[in-house]
Amino acid sequence: MSSVTQTGSGPQPATGDASPGEPAAVPRGPVTSASYSITVRLTADGDPASIGRIATAVGQAGGAVTAIDVVESRSDGLTVDVTCSAADAAHSEEMVDALRAVPGVTVRKVSDRTFLLHLGGKLEIASRVPLKTRDDLSMAYTPGVARVCLALAEHPEDVRRLTIKGNTVAVVTDGSAVLGLGDLGPGAALPVMEGKAALFKRFADIDAWPICLDTQDVDEIVRAVELIAPGFGGINLEDIAAPRCFEIEARLRAKLDIPVFHDDQHGTAIVALAALRNALRVVDKQLPDVRIVVAGAGAAGSAIVHLLLEAGAGQVLVWDREGILSPDDDRLSPAKRSLAEQTNPACTRGELPDALAGADVFIGVSAGNVLPVEALAGMAERAVVFPMANPTPEVDPVRARQHAAVVASGRSDLPNQINNVLAFPGVFRGLLDARATEISDGMLLAAAEALAAVVRDDQLNANYIIPSVFDPAVTPAVAAAVAEQARTEPGATAPVTDRTSLTG
Amino acid sequence: MSSVTQTGSGPQPATGDASPGEPAAVPRGPVTSASYSITVRLTADGDPASIGRIATAVGQAGGAVTAIDVVESRSDGLTVDVTCSAADAAHSEEMVDALRAVPGVTVRKVSDRTFLLHLGGKLEIASRVPLKTRDDLSMAYTPGVARVCLALAEHPEDVRRLTIKGNTVAVVTDGSAVLGLGDLGPGAALPVMEGKAALFKRFADIDAWPICLDTQDVDEIVRAVELIAPGFGGINLEDIAAPRCFEIEARLRAKLDIPVFHDDQHGTAIVALAALRNALRVVDKQLPDVRIVVAGAGAAGSAIVHLLLEAGAGQVLVWDREGILSPDDDRLSPAKRSLAEQTNPACTRGELPDALAGADVFIGVSAGNVLPVEALAGMAERAVVFPMANPTPEVDPVRARQHAAVVASGRSDLPNQINNVLAFPGVFRGLLDARATEISDGMLLAAAEALAAVVRDDQLNANYIIPSVFDPAVTPAVAAAVAEQARTEPGATAPVTDRTSLTG
Repeated sequence: MSSVTQTGSGPQPATGDASPGEPAAVPRGPVTSASYSITVRLTADGDPASIGRIATAVGQAGGAVTAIDVVESRSDGLTVDVTCSAADAAHSEEMVDALRAVPGVTVRKVSDRTFLLHLGGKLEIASRVPLKTRDDLSMAYTPGVARVCLALAEHPEDVRRLTIKGNTVAVVTDGSAVLGLGDLGPGAALPVMEGKAALFKRFADIDAWPICLDTQDVDEIVRAVELIAPGFGGINLEDIAAPRCFEIEARLRAKLDIPVFHDDQHGTAIVALAALRNALRVVDKQLPDVRIVVAGAGAAGSAIVHLLLEAGAGQVLVWDREGILSPDDDRLSPAKRSLAEQTNPACTRGELPDALAGADVFIGVSAGNVLPVEALAGMAERAVVFPMANPTPEVDPVRARQHAAVVASGRSDLPNQINNVLAFPGVFRGLLDARATEISDGMLLAAAEALAAVVRDDQLNANYIIPSVFDPAVTPAVAAAVAEQARTEPGATAPVTDRTSLTG
Repeated sequence: MSSVTQTGSGPQPATGDASPGEPAAVPRGPVTSASYSITVRLTADGDPASIGRIATAVGQAGGAVTAIDVVESRSDGLTVDVTCSAADAAHSEEMVDALRAVPGVTVRKVSDRTFLLHLGGKLEIASRVPLKTRDDLSMAYTPGVARVCLALAEHPEDVRRLTIKGNTVAVVTDGSAVLGLGDLGPGAALPVMEGKAALFKRFADIDAWPICLDTQDVDEIVRAVELIAPGFGGINLEDIAAPRCFEIEARLRAKLDIPVFHDDQHGTAIVALAALRNALRVVDKQLPDVRIVVAGAGAAGSAIVHLLLEAGAGQVLVWDREGILSPDDDRLSPAKRSLAEQTNPACTRGELPDALAGADVFIGVSAGNVLPVEALAGMAERAVVFPMANPTPEVDPVRARQHAAVVASGRSDLPNQINNVLAFPGVFRGLLDARATEISDGMLLAAAEALAAVVRDDQLNANYIIPSVFDPAVTPAVAAAVAEQARTEPGATAPVTDRTSLTG
């Protein structure tokens, strides 16, 4: 999952990237979130003051008791469920520790809504066919299934039509870059992959299944995905660290006859480009004319730059913690050098404020608070600023509005949330509908154009450049555009069976 | 899927193994099956005789028209759906060819219930959590999911509790031994794996997902399964050819901390042993005393022999197409030599009738019609005969009843159907419930005992030694026995979290 797909407004216990810039104070919203409430079951002795001490302890720990429910009352004391709002996970633990320290109180169990929701996992499978009678079994399983297998052995092109392959996506991770949390490994990454699969179903009726790989070796990841590919109609790479993710994606695209999409790259790029398209409509500028600065040269930044250039952007500079990427900088990795060569032939050097001087557009996918708000003052008139780092943007979006005509960020509590959920469900829906065997820049561009076009001229304004994730028009529009583009590209789709046969 | 898991009675277009014995005529049941009906949409010209010629053509091809539905009538002709019963797939095609040859008739489309049922695949995924509101998203996905991931990184033992791993099984195949059809490859094997996953859900509420591997190399299969294991609570190997399946299973069991089960081996062995337990109750003989002949030394035969010996069988001989397996036979493969050494220290040689002379029990998992019914006459009194080869048993079960006191087979149209669906759902339900990290012979034996015990003393008779696949008592009984056994074996289950924490 990209660092720009945050769908909630609460703070997040992210480690984030190292932040070379000077942190600017970002005013926070409310400190509590639905996802950070805990319920502590505890027993208190018979002392009437104990309950009072509980609320005091939570308050002194900086939290607030939102409910006290008596579960059981005995002559010698009470069992109570205390629900407290918290700012983040560490804060929750502080409150629990504070409760443990209350004389006469024993903490029995701590739970919260988010963990309760995860009990038993977030996905299940279901049979699409009845299995009630022996006749049912004889068609879905033996002996009837044998004829389907034989037909598929003879006509492999029918596999997409007669099996789940036509509607399945593998959500593949190595657990190396889970959210903004870093390398947590495949087991701890599973909840994110489950959530992603649930979103695939919710937004695009796609049957996605998590594949958490117990390796971070590029060759092994590529080979494992290649080996499991027969059962899937697409591969969604997720939370794989850069630069490894680039090689994995490139090699898989070359090997497989199903599309391979790295959401952290391309999903982010599609939504950013769509938002920029509409922002430029608002400020009445043209993509080939504007000067764009992209902060961050990781998976998301690279993909955004690539798609901007494909879309016809004329001037792009990339900045990361090493400064403006320049071809004459010997320290750069191959991936960053390539970016520098594509964007900075003049070998401009400098820091982020230098890059921004006179620029029309800022797109940030780097780290929190790397951009002093004052630097925005040096941008061109009617500037567009997208500080998309999560959980903390590069610059406070609210203060950025003082200098910019249009602001968008990953925050769900402000207008113009850049959220990958706007892209990946529709992209894969379109790919599967078209039986696409690959994914092209043309399809990514088509997705961005379609997403931008969901915002009609009469709706467009500086606070509405991108639709809501719950807008039901989004996924069908993106899917139709991707499918149409796939069908127009030679060799991009699998042959469609069109014959009179027993499998008809 | 084992060759003994047939759940329907219809004939099956199997290639089967080479059959060294002399084929005996096996009387067939009705030639038609729910899974072999086709519907042909055709247009007929205005000649009133055309419709008559259609029925005549089907009849001359050996089929029968069961329905004619007029879809559209025009002055110059008709569009008609003709439904015909067929004996097998080749027969269906013959009927279609016959229809194509009728003057004035044009075949438009041929479909059948089994293929229609497979359109779009047989599985889908569903979200177990609501995803309607932003609060829902903030708990199931970002930012809330981050805390679950962090907790799992710190406490890996909670992965089974807070993710799908606690209830998932990978149904893994290389497509090398699909049903009795042989090496069809991973894509054509997918319908069987989907059916298996659907059965897991239907009979044990387990979320199984097909993994069809694009390799038949042992090292690659082992490594691929190892790499995907973090997301699954168990591995069900399926339709992998012998002897490769033995090494794959053994190596995976040594490497993984989740149970690995090869249904073609162990599922078959469990059901066969359960049936034999009850058959011996009917004929009042004891397992240590009886002489048993097993025909077939592949995956199923090896596992049956192994489990019989573990259960206390005293005398077992194994026969396959090379004759009675004997340690002094230099032609034997390592796997067969091992079987010979375990069963035939006296180095008895001979063919199947020789082995059966005086034997109490015949268990066949070899090929159709390899056993002349007359050979059964040489068996001991009150013989038990299980000709389980599919689709055609080793000997006709109906005629075998002339010589044997108890007969069981894979046929669903006769009493005592040996069907793996009686075992694998309950076995994995028990393994998952116990958080088993491995599967042992003790658990397989417990499963067999529990399955046998579902048939109460007051129900037991020669025509009811094994319950129906639809008996709701089966899976819970098998699951409870397996889970109990797993919990009693040192180190066989994963640690259960029992602490007060945020993940509680």
